Amino acid sequence: MQRPLILVTNDDGITAPGIRNLVEFMNEIGEVVVVAPNSPQSGQGHAITINQTLTFEEINLEGPQKDFSLSGTPVDCVKFALDKILPRRPDLVVSGINHGANSSINVIYSGTMSAAVEAGVEGLQAIGFSLLDFSWDADFLQAKEQIQRIVKKVLENPLPKGVVLNVNIPKLNKEEIKGIKVCKQADAKWEENFDERINPHGKKYYWLTGYFNNMDKSEDADETALSEGYISVVPVKFDLTAYEYMHDLKGLLE
Amino acid sequence: MQRPLILVTNDDGITAPGIRNLVEFMNEIGEVVVVAPNSPQSGQGHAITINQTLTFEEINLEGPQKDFSLSGTPVDCVKFALDKILPRRPDLVVSGINHGANSSINVIYSGTMSAAVEAGVEGLQAIGFSLLDFSWDADFLQAKEQIQRIVKKVLENPLPKGVVLNVNIPKLNKEEIKGIKVCKQADAKWEENFDERINPHGKKYYWLTGYFNNMDKSEDADETALSEGYISVVPVKFDLTAYEYMHDLKGLLE
Repeated sequence: MQRPLILVTNDDGITAPGIRNLVEFMNEIGEVVVVAPNSPQSGQGHAITINQTLTFEEINLEGPQKDFSLSGTPVDCVKFALDKILPRRPDLVVSGINHGANSSINVIYSGTMSAAVEAGVEGLQAIGFSLLDFSWDADFLQAKEQIQRIVKKVLENPLPKGVVLNVNIPKLNKEEIKGIKVCKQADAKWEENFDERINPHGKKYYWLTGYFNNMDKSEDADETALSEGYISVVPVKFDLTAYEYMHDLKGLLE
Repeated sequence: MQRPLILVTNDDGITAPGIRNLVEFMNEIGEVVVVAPNSPQSGQGHAITINQTLTFEEINLEGPQKDFSLSGTPVDCVKFALDKILPRRPDLVVSGINHGANSSINVIYSGTMSAAVEAGVEGLQAIGFSLLDFSWDADFLQAKEQIQRIVKKVLENPLPKGVVLNVNIPKLNKEEIKGIKVCKQADAKWEENFDERINPHGKKYYWLTGYFNNMDKSEDADETALSEGYISVVPVKFDLTAYEYMHDLKGLLE
């Protein structure tokens, strides 16, 4: 049987430790092609590059996989891989491992998850992985077996059309991780707080900062599962229609 | 009674005809503050600016509103307006009028809609408006009355928590527009087709191009309504959890 073809991408850039670990884990499961940004793309959301051009190059990194770096966003990487690089449609697209959480509302800001969502839009199986540790020296090995297990399950039991997975891994030792919990996206938000500075010419400028405000303590929220030591898995869809409100809205507007 | 405070933003930039028309329409309804990007931001999706700084300036444009241009994305504009510019929480955030469609899957790539979604995340009432005409000379006046009607309805009957509106307007004369239809997001996608070129130094580069593929002919899809001459209104939510698949996924992974 042909080994599954796995496309790997991320938003931290092709040389980030998170993606290099994910590539190693995937090399044990299938034939791996990496198409990832040539520079960090955090917070890019579902951005695509339409007013600039793109370039790519094959680079030589350790391992049996092929590596291509692209001058675009994570979503660009998925589109470009499908159109110009991959020999056939991949059996799976994995994105990450992100350095930092993409739980709750972060799914909409996340380049990591946007790559997975784009793959879903393309009709492909897709999973985004994130570790709750921003450090470049983070330990990604702790969750190797769980990541490989999730990937194999999805390869054997394809997700329904229109659904991709958002997997977040707590910053814990392997022994401390309690297992996997399927969750909903917690109701949470970032409270923005722009940091004002003065440049050498006397002009004000601002850094976007903020703090995370989790309003959702429910048992099945991803933030709850993570805080309890579980790996959270949220099935994510990209039909954003609020079907439950259509009837009332018809009464209001039609 | 105090006039409603309306924040206006967009993704085509603060001087685009679409936003200037929307500002005029809103000036007749409330007190208007504009915080919009100082340059075009199409395709920015839910991008935020975290590795660069932001600057803003008040600019003088015709009309009673206040205008502020920001060096960031549409989502940055909403966050910055709330934290640094607005005198109080706005009663409504409107984004657009976008030059071009944001129907169906375009909602996830759209800076216009991401600004509306960000406002929704902040717990605000929000609507994104788009006209199916890319031209800078597009006629935005045709839908003035309908836009004002939708805005007034939402001000009088607030949307439920977690829901914002995605309004698309067909490129038709006022007399040809059949009315408003509440719709679901059509199941459609862009088929990417990167255009390969050679630069003067012999290196390949690429432009992202593609064509829109609507797979959804159902009566209640926004693409259908638009093709029939209706203004489409999709209630959009940002809890992306695929609740209907959680049970099966638990069986697979837990």
